[in-house]
Amino acid sequence: MNNVDISFIPDLPAGGPLAVYRKRANFDWKRLRLLFETEQGSRIKYNVWSRLENDPLFAHASRTLPMDEQKRLAAMQVNRMKHLQLVPPEVDALDFSRKTKYLMHINEALASYSPSLSVKIALGVGLFNNAIRAMGTEKHTKYIEAAWNREIITCLAVTELSHGSNTKCIRTTATYDPCTQEFVINTPDFEAAKCWVGNLGKMATVAMTFANLQTADGVNHGLHGFLIPIRDPKTLLPYPGVLVGDIGEKCGLNGIDNGFVVFTNYRIPRDNLLNRTGNVTPEGVYESVFAEPGKALGAALESFSAGRIGIMQEAANTLCSAAVIAVRYAAVRKQFGPERQGEEIAIIEYQLHQYRIFPYLAAACVMKIAVEQLTNTYLEIVAGSQADANGFDVLTQKAGEIHAIISASKPRITWCARDAIQEAREACGGHGYLRAAKLGDMRTDHDPLCTYEGDNNVLGQQASNWLLRQWNAKQLETPLGSVKFLEQRQQLLQLKFEQLIKQSPLDSWQFALSCYEWLLCYLMRHTAQHMEQQLAAGVHRFEARNNSQVAGARELSLAYAEYFGLSRFVAHVRQLQLDAPYARVLRLLYDVYAMWLLEKHMTSFYVGGFAAGSAFASAVQQRLLQSCAQLKDMAVSVADSIAPPDFALNSIIARADGLLYENLQNEFMTNEGAFQRPSWWRDVIIPQTETKSKL
Amino acid sequence: MNNVDISFIPDLPAGGPLAVYRKRANFDWKRLRLLFETEQGSRIKYNVWSRLENDPLFAHASRTLPMDEQKRLAAMQVNRMKHLQLVPPEVDALDFSRKTKYLMHINEALASYSPSLSVKIALGVGLFNNAIRAMGTEKHTKYIEAAWNREIITCLAVTELSHGSNTKCIRTTATYDPCTQEFVINTPDFEAAKCWVGNLGKMATVAMTFANLQTADGVNHGLHGFLIPIRDPKTLLPYPGVLVGDIGEKCGLNGIDNGFVVFTNYRIPRDNLLNRTGNVTPEGVYESVFAEPGKALGAALESFSAGRIGIMQEAANTLCSAAVIAVRYAAVRKQFGPERQGEEIAIIEYQLHQYRIFPYLAAACVMKIAVEQLTNTYLEIVAGSQADANGFDVLTQKAGEIHAIISASKPRITWCARDAIQEAREACGGHGYLRAAKLGDMRTDHDPLCTYEGDNNVLGQQASNWLLRQWNAKQLETPLGSVKFLEQRQQLLQLKFEQLIKQSPLDSWQFALSCYEWLLCYLMRHTAQHMEQQLAAGVHRFEARNNSQVAGARELSLAYAEYFGLSRFVAHVRQLQLDAPYARVLRLLYDVYAMWLLEKHMTSFYVGGFAAGSAFASAVQQRLLQSCAQLKDMAVSVADSIAPPDFALNSIIARADGLLYENLQNEFMTNEGAFQRPSWWRDVIIPQTETKSKL
Repeated sequence: MNNVDISFIPDLPAGGPLAVYRKRANFDWKRLRLLFETEQGSRIKYNVWSRLENDPLFAHASRTLPMDEQKRLAAMQVNRMKHLQLVPPEVDALDFSRKTKYLMHINEALASYSPSLSVKIALGVGLFNNAIRAMGTEKHTKYIEAAWNREIITCLAVTELSHGSNTKCIRTTATYDPCTQEFVINTPDFEAAKCWVGNLGKMATVAMTFANLQTADGVNHGLHGFLIPIRDPKTLLPYPGVLVGDIGEKCGLNGIDNGFVVFTNYRIPRDNLLNRTGNVTPEGVYESVFAEPGKALGAALESFSAGRIGIMQEAANTLCSAAVIAVRYAAVRKQFGPERQGEEIAIIEYQLHQYRIFPYLAAACVMKIAVEQLTNTYLEIVAGSQADANGFDVLTQKAGEIHAIISASKPRITWCARDAIQEAREACGGHGYLRAAKLGDMRTDHDPLCTYEGDNNVLGQQASNWLLRQWNAKQLETPLGSVKFLEQRQQLLQLKFEQLIKQSPLDSWQFALSCYEWLLCYLMRHTAQHMEQQLAAGVHRFEARNNSQVAGARELSLAYAEYFGLSRFVAHVRQLQLDAPYARVLRLLYDVYAMWLLEKHMTSFYVGGFAAGSAFASAVQQRLLQSCAQLKDMAVSVADSIAPPDFALNSIIARADGLLYENLQNEFMTNEGAFQRPSWWRDVIIPQTETKSKL
Repeated sequence: MNNVDISFIPDLPAGGPLAVYRKRANFDWKRLRLLFETEQGSRIKYNVWSRLENDPLFAHASRTLPMDEQKRLAAMQVNRMKHLQLVPPEVDALDFSRKTKYLMHINEALASYSPSLSVKIALGVGLFNNAIRAMGTEKHTKYIEAAWNREIITCLAVTELSHGSNTKCIRTTATYDPCTQEFVINTPDFEAAKCWVGNLGKMATVAMTFANLQTADGVNHGLHGFLIPIRDPKTLLPYPGVLVGDIGEKCGLNGIDNGFVVFTNYRIPRDNLLNRTGNVTPEGVYESVFAEPGKALGAALESFSAGRIGIMQEAANTLCSAAVIAVRYAAVRKQFGPERQGEEIAIIEYQLHQYRIFPYLAAACVMKIAVEQLTNTYLEIVAGSQADANGFDVLTQKAGEIHAIISASKPRITWCARDAIQEAREACGGHGYLRAAKLGDMRTDHDPLCTYEGDNNVLGQQASNWLLRQWNAKQLETPLGSVKFLEQRQQLLQLKFEQLIKQSPLDSWQFALSCYEWLLCYLMRHTAQHMEQQLAAGVHRFEARNNSQVAGARELSLAYAEYFGLSRFVAHVRQLQLDAPYARVLRLLYDVYAMWLLEKHMTSFYVGGFAAGSAFASAVQQRLLQSCAQLKDMAVSVADSIAPPDFALNSIIARADGLLYENLQNEFMTNEGAFQRPSWWRDVIIPQTETKSKL
């Protein structure tokens, strides 16, 4: 690993309060960094950050801007993208996977600078274009280029006021009129108004819209995608028949103009139907189109999963940032000490504090690698579908499995990041509540990731449904191997802690993985039995499934995502040729994260009979606490290895220089109007009558 | 219970989508309401809300105001208080407990309308005056009246930039100069700048400040309170020697002007020392003052605990509001259904959804009663200290015990509210992310309650320290009876689930309480042993204590708070003469909350040997799910009974009329500039060259 080029990674400030801990790490944080992300990915991200930092349009605002100004700025920044030339021309010539990864790295860097910006780009370019590729045909490719060149401003209008998760109940209609060869778009009532559509509120000129295609004979052919012009691109004024507005202030992400739209007998050309799977002849006859099934499946997968993959990458980075802030602050902040009059100690030295924040640091590191691995697998499948090298069956199986993995992992990662931010905020005390600490904005901007692109609770059920199908199937369909262990389900279910520890000791990579294999088998069996009992008692399948979520399905789905992450991390790390200090720190991170996860499932391990007595729980907790203690002196350098530069992290309490109090002083002294008497001071003084006052 | 007057409680809108569920409840929500709060408390709160609603100064802003405007508005509102006459003159004549409760109810109502407002009043009047009463003498009483009349604008300056929790390390100095009979206040460096002081940033004219009293001989006599003039009350301009500023934007609570201040050789009169426990003669000799110890203790208790009691009341109300929003939304929002083409069902019907939100509804109800009980106990102790009826020893014991209860309960309640808000946000999906849904502001405004007036993690250790002292003591000191069960510790530690269920079946009130008594004994023994082992191995007591937090102390402290809440609820409810439907719903709420709590401690129950096999876990989960199912048809009416009126709740997705989509439509259509083309539209269009565009 010595021949890795780390020269492009900027140095951190020398000295300062963090140096105490930095000196204790026996590895180079830059080399460690390139174990968490590829050299190319890292280069792309540093390049993006440096270009943004050098352009005043991307200077951070010193306070929350008014909503309208946030929107303006985000829009201006989107437009500046082209000027910044983040995508060199040669990228266009790369194959699908490489090109996609290139764009994904740019997105990651943008998202950690400003979620509003990256979401706006994703909505306006990436997701829109994916949707067109998945649902459109040749005649629609011009839209892809137009969106890319910002000739049109686009959005995806799926959700309606009363329907989000249950997209099948969408009620907007597109009725074909053979006389004019147009579709007539209608919103039956306000409950069917498209809403929450990002980019729509103020700007979009075209909306990719889901609507029920109806032919003149009154037959509803189900949901199809339509390209619906919204505003005149020259004036940004809406077209007649389109009532479009901005939904107003949100908890965060206010740089995005989420909008709503109501269509009233609004006519669009026949060609605006995205007609890959279904078409209407000029005369008004509906025809199903059977495209190559493999490609269609791949395209659909790309369309629906790309957003979730992006979310996972962003959430993993958010998790990194939260952990970095918590660790750096903890290394500098001192409070209390063994002697009343003596020196105080840094709060990172407290076991409880380590227990609160190190698992998130470890989770961040493990997830960085796991998400990278997952992304590669996903891209291989999509690329494979394009190459058509695999048979359709294998592709279907792979698509099913990757969908399950993504459906389980997106909730797992976004919830982990959510909790990390909150714990970091509290672990940084009052100073963590300062807006300049960044944790507040992180929390509000990250929050919707738990809901959009598939509500976490709903999505998790798709994973558990797949898992239960595997459990009940005669033949496993796991071409990616994520549940290959089910082949040993009988032996696994017999496993006990006392026996496992003999074959895979606590300090083996396999220990936690085997615990998980038992756990997953147990949860699948338990949930499946629970389902069966209800079905046998005559309960409707819909209800039986709903009533099995708490009993097991929910935990199953989360545990599956955790197992997948851990096993991908192990598989990847074990094949690396690592120098001892690097192997050691990766191992510690794995142990902290894995033991912490096992603790969360402790009840199932006991209730399910894997463990009895205190041995298992105390072994796990002891190893967790020991690993935290060992990680302590390396934690700052680990944080350095996953930290974005100060410009992107943008936290006054976690600058790389570690000058916590100097930076806070600067912030206090220079914030706008800090020393200014308020202009309204006269309004808030109650006039004092000389005689009355006693002071 | 039929003779209760409920006439003053305004009706809810008849009909509407919530009526379906409201009709299914077989109790009157108004009567239920008066089981969760006293008639007097309820009257006071409705009166406050109605007065605010009728004054345009208190109309809700339709979007987040600029920080400066938030500060102005909060200050104006504080000043309007007097005009609103929320405190009738006769209140002044009430005894201490009644008067305090009266003011507490006003605070509750104000806090649920606007946390910034209530915090500003609490800081400027309540806490300041408590501090003067605790630390000052006769000559300082004029400040109390002046603060009450807003002749002075006050604040409490304790925290310094580098010291929050460890107040003992505060470094500001007050050096007595006998020549001028003044104290010279100095901030040694910026790390000792007072900061985060609410009311200080823009407005305070006097700061109650903690500083080290030094006499001319160079001796440091430790921390004392000083009244330090900050600004001229006629001009709000700071005095020379006082560098005072606003710390800038926070995540929330931006109506409060948190400030920092640096003193440089700033002179204040000798009389400004709060000299109840220590004084300096005009000549400069320091003298300790021994006041009546009982009264001093009571005053200190009042001073330090009043804020935490207030926080618990506010957090309980926040928990109520979050639960109300989640329940009302769930009863109206429909998504999916058993048949693809059939009716969709309300999400409140889903077991997983019930499991996610009902425990918070139940927690809210139980905590409302528990906090009320705790408040009464606290006020009795303080009043008792004033009456000096008890011996000093008993008072000391009571003070220690109530301090432990408060130190455990403040973290428990604030964390529960924090989690409830987040779960409610997610349970309300995207619509929950709308600013008008209120959950975002609730989250950011509630967040600091986990940190201020005692960081939750630090505070919890004070409770566990007290508990471990009780465990190790020869004689229990539990005049309030919160750990009376320790008398049976030997029998309790032998308890097993199978045995317990025979003597106290699952449907008895005692079941959960006995589980907790076992749990607390187990955790105390476990933690105490853990401590002893380390001390025996030569570990410093400071470290041994730190290293026992994860092992047990942390859970112990939380479990103690939960047990206290549950047992106070049971004791209170069981002595009420309730009609069957009311008894039934209180019982269901207790079961949901208690079973949910037991689930959280499941690991300890198994590891500690109370349970083995699946019986206990599945009995608890089954009862929890069954109770949720039974609660489902009553949940809306329960929510009504703890909901503030629409004006205070202020959530567009949870209005009492249940007209979710109509209200959202109204919000979308009327938000400022919803349909307006942005003024900056020209800046964000990339000019299209006719020849280039393909569209």
